[in-house]
Amino acid sequence: MITPPVSRYPVPPLEGLPDDLRARILEVQEKSGFVPNVFLAFSHRPDEFRAFFAYHDALMLREESNLTKGDREMIVTTTSAANNCLYCVVAHGALLRIYEKKPLVADQVAVNYRKADITPRQMAMLDFAMRVCLESDDIDEDDFAELAGHGFTDEDVWDIAAITAFFGLSNRMASFAGMMPNPEFYLMGRVPKAK
Amino acid sequence: MITPPVSRYPVPPLEGLPDDLRARILEVQEKSGFVPNVFLAFSHRPDEFRAFFAYHDALMLREESNLTKGDREMIVTTTSAANNCLYCVVAHGALLRIYEKKPLVADQVAVNYRKADITPRQMAMLDFAMRVCLESDDIDEDDFAELAGHGFTDEDVWDIAAITAFFGLSNRMASFAGMMPNPEFYLMGRVPKAK
Amino acid sequence: MITPPVSRYPVPPLEGLPDDLRARILEVQEKSGFVPNVFLAFSHRPDEFRAFFAYHDALMLREESNLTKGDREMIVTTTSAANNCLYCVVAHGALLRIYEKKPLVADQVAVNYRKADITPRQMAMLDFAMRVCLESDDIDEDDFAELAGHGFTDEDVWDIAAITAFFGLSNRMASFAGMMPNPEFYLMGRVPKAK
Amino acid sequence: MITPPVSRYPVPPLEGLPDDLRARILEVQEKSGFVPNVFLAFSHRPDEFRAFFAYHDALMLREESNLTKGDREMIVTTTSAANNCLYCVVAHGALLRIYEKKPLVADQVAVNYRKADITPRQMAMLDFAMRVCLESDDIDEDDFAELAGHGFTDEDVWDIAAITAFFGLSNRMASFAGMMPNPEFYLMGRVPKAK
Amino acid sequence: MITPPVSRYPVPPLEGLPDDLRARILEVQEKSGFVPNVFLAFSHRPDEFRAFFAYHDALMLREESNLTKGDREMIVTTTSAANNCLYCVVAHGALLRIYEKKPLVADQVAVNYRKADITPRQMAMLDFAMRVCLESDDIDEDDFAELAGHGFTDEDVWDIAAITAFFGLSNRMASFAGMMPNPEFYLMGRVPKAK
Amino acid sequence: MITPPVSRYPVPPLEGLPDDLRARILEVQEKSGFVPNVFLAFSHRPDEFRAFFAYHDALMLREESNLTKGDREMIVTTTSAANNCLYCVVAHGALLRIYEKKPLVADQVAVNYRKADITPRQMAMLDFAMRVCLESDDIDEDDFAELAGHGFTDEDVWDIAAITAFFGLSNRMASFAGMMPNPEFYLMGRVPKAK
Repeated sequence: MITPPVSRYPVPPLEGLPDDLRARILEVQEKSGFVPNVFLAFSHRPDEFRAFFAYHDALMLREESNLTKGDREMIVTTTSAANNCLYCVVAHGALLRIYEKKPLVADQVAVNYRKADITPRQMAMLDFAMRVCLESDDIDEDDFAELAGHGFTDEDVWDIAAITAFFGLSNRMASFAGMMPNPEFYLMGRVPKAK
Repeated sequence: MITPPVSRYPVPPLEGLPDDLRARILEVQEKSGFVPNVFLAFSHRPDEFRAFFAYHDALMLREESNLTKGDREMIVTTTSAANNCLYCVVAHGALLRIYEKKPLVADQVAVNYRKADITPRQMAMLDFAMRVCLESDDIDEDDFAELAGHGFTDEDVWDIAAITAFFGLSNRMASFAGMMPNPEFYLMGRVPKAK
Repeated sequence: MITPPVSRYPVPPLEGLPDDLRARILEVQEKSGFVPNVFLAFSHRPDEFRAFFAYHDALMLREESNLTKGDREMIVTTTSAANNCLYCVVAHGALLRIYEKKPLVADQVAVNYRKADITPRQMAMLDFAMRVCLESDDIDEDDFAELAGHGFTDEDVWDIAAITAFFGLSNRMASFAGMMPNPEFYLMGRVPKAK
Repeated sequence: MITPPVSRYPVPPLEGLPDDLRARILEVQEKSGFVPNVFLAFSHRPDEFRAFFAYHDALMLREESNLTKGDREMIVTTTSAANNCLYCVVAHGALLRIYEKKPLVADQVAVNYRKADITPRQMAMLDFAMRVCLESDDIDEDDFAELAGHGFTDEDVWDIAAITAFFGLSNRMASFAGMMPNPEFYLMGRVPKAK
Repeated sequence: MITPPVSRYPVPPLEGLPDDLRARILEVQEKSGFVPNVFLAFSHRPDEFRAFFAYHDALMLREESNLTKGDREMIVTTTSAANNCLYCVVAHGALLRIYEKKPLVADQVAVNYRKADITPRQMAMLDFAMRVCLESDDIDEDDFAELAGHGFTDEDVWDIAAITAFFGLSNRMASFAGMMPNPEFYLMGRVPKAK
Repeated sequence: MITPPVSRYPVPPLEGLPDDLRARILEVQEKSGFVPNVFLAFSHRPDEFRAFFAYHDALMLREESNLTKGDREMIVTTTSAANNCLYCVVAHGALLRIYEKKPLVADQVAVNYRKADITPRQMAMLDFAMRVCLESDDIDEDDFAELAGHGFTDEDVWDIAAITAFFGLSNRMASFAGMMPNPEFYLMGRVPKAK
């Protein structure tokens, strides 16, 4: 099941993992057809694995959010590109293409989101995400007002900021540990009915 | 119990919080004598509250780590200063002073860790933490070799990176939301048996 | 033949172009099955069109070069990503995949070439290309020595520098004028015998 | 009287100094209870010692200035933090706390002055000081107009700029020479009736 | 005719060059009284020589442009200074002084164009040229609108951008190859009736 | 005697100045044939005028220094260019040409000192000056060792650092106040026996 390399850290055998980790990994394998390497790369640290994916789910699966799943993956892809994180750009770019049903959008936001074929609301969302990513210390009420002008509530702003902040963590972990994206991600969502 | 301002986001009344959040908040209040604002600032998002503190504890309370508690708080204070995060520098600088029993060290690493009165091993640890904080995309085997020369194992390196990455998340959340450090933190650990 | 938008500048009708421009455009259309937008975007300035493509050909088709066509497109894709140029990353990333016969390599070098699955010689080539792209004023004999250690002659170094410099020009033109990559490029070289 | 280390440069014995230097040093010792290391670090260069402190006094003791002593120390602390100067942040942060009678303000402006508990007028003053500190070449009439909107005259603007510029000199001298702040500074102004 | 050093690359003897290169070199020698080193530095690559000077002429000699020759050299001098390119600042600074008949202007724009004695229209032109030089990925319709307010048409904007982009190429080639400006350039246009 | 503009600040009439300022101004006028604008620009602040020129003289006229006058002006010109200070680059570039008797050297170090025709010892001196100018917080014993390898004593290092730091002050004052270099400076030292 494991195609090397996952990262520069060793990956424990699946059977040796705590039950909840193994269950989560098998679940994602069944759903996706493969195990995204981030699950394997974190599995040698069960407590961090649990916290990482709990945080991920709290943000990316949050049901009461006004951000669509496409919006959220767009934030991830754009800010991960700003951090030059190979794993996250490739893996979340795939999800972005699928959720937005736009095969070109992930490459566009990864290279230069200002040139991407997205809505003005999404552009404002990404402008703010980049502020959180690169200069969070300079954010003030003007940022909130700008976003309010595009219909974003304070809770929406929290969502944008929290997703950006969480993937800033993820980007740093993936880059330092050399996590490599699974080959499957690169083509997902690029062709109609892929696979 | 709550002295405004905590952050620009509303803080729900303690009695309305889920039991586990309220219990955690009361626990820290009993232990510290006050509730650090980060607990209140996250309380309107229970799932994120749980994931945030679970991740925090996984890293900062990890028992099998070779990093001392002082080492860990030193990483937090130094990298939070690089991100200009007021809340984390003040709050974790207090813990750093206490764990290291050095009343001057937090101000030193926050302003310029290269001038701080710390060990060469700690200096190498902070050099790497700053790499993770500011240029994680450029990390390679040379970084691991440098750290190995100071006795850090690969698992120690993961600890340094993960703490830096997690507080990069925390810094961005605190700065964007305007979380203010409790006044109590500023003086903690500066005077013998601080009142 | 022209699918808008090509760029923010008007594209003259093909029949109104000077013969040599029209011939070149028809030639590339026949060879590729479509007209890359850069040909159309430059066509309102015939003298610049001629000079641009003459320069391009002098570098990218240079027969006596020791750089393979894959090497050259790798330089273009990597440095164009550093300049956040959507057109060049997408268009030349396609050529890179085809020449290198590696469907994943373009996304890798565009996001973080240090993590890409390339040879040490190519890594040194890209390190130098990034120096030319971002800090050409600081290049000295140490750079030449480093490259010589990987087997690059002085003429090879000129090739790397000239390709980087030329596409620095191209990146700035494409970005300022809003040139959009043709949709065909995004998928080229990603799947065996695409289309 | 001298507690090592003062800086990496030797400190001549007090009795060997020119009379005016010795008098100044004894005066500050009597007033403060200790000799700030900057006096000792400059004492091996009498002409520079005299010019440095004459310049310091011309700016920081200027009686006709509309800037309060607290304003001036706030400029010093904030811009010295931008230059990562340990000596000046710690020493002038102490004076700032005392003059403003605000035990928290020095840490706030040193980490992120935009989050500090200061007046809008002081915020505008610091915005301009940071311009002088980091991008003086870009200052134009818009800066003067912005400051005028907060009641600052052209002479006040000169004061802000001159204080920032002088401490930019001081920061570079202290950092290059490794001047260490006296331990006494760290706690000054933090507790009621310190000492 | 050749005074070393021209660059770190060998310069072929004039008699061995293709006829068109030799003719061009002799022509410039006759006109200027010396051969600018850039002609010699490119002569070992005839195809690139031809393309480089064809591109140069297409932009710098373009007759239908609304930019004066002085405007164009001002763009070159300013952006070449931003790229720290010794050859281009010295050589094109000389031409700028001559075309503008202002012996001080080249040094002014090279050090800080915002302080130069130029028109508001030229200042806006240089502001945009610096955008193309340093942050072309961020250019959008606001830039075009700003320039339109100073009377620049879209075709004028293309001229500014193309000149900046072409000399960005030239700067990188000159810096990497160590091209040295001919001594004659330094004094041209500084004194009345300079020979 | 005064040719406008000197700076954006008013210049008091010579007769109204304190005697020592007027004497100093008349002295420099007699020696140079004109009054450099920096003397006029500082004259409305007598105490700062005195301290500024006392500091200047302590560094630039220091007799026991191992740095030649040419070395010192080279440091000023190079670092002032890094700060984009028009006044100091033009005025001190003139002095540099005269002291070094090299009419080309000022333009060279101002654009890119790494390409200048200077000695390896001067290159090392400028490398360190740029460290003090741009990243003084990062200087450590390795810098001193590097300079020692070129024969610089610790006192020489202090000279380099102090000159850089003082002109960093001067650069910020000149830029913020819009001090304009006197036209006379531009041509000084460029031609033999300049009139």
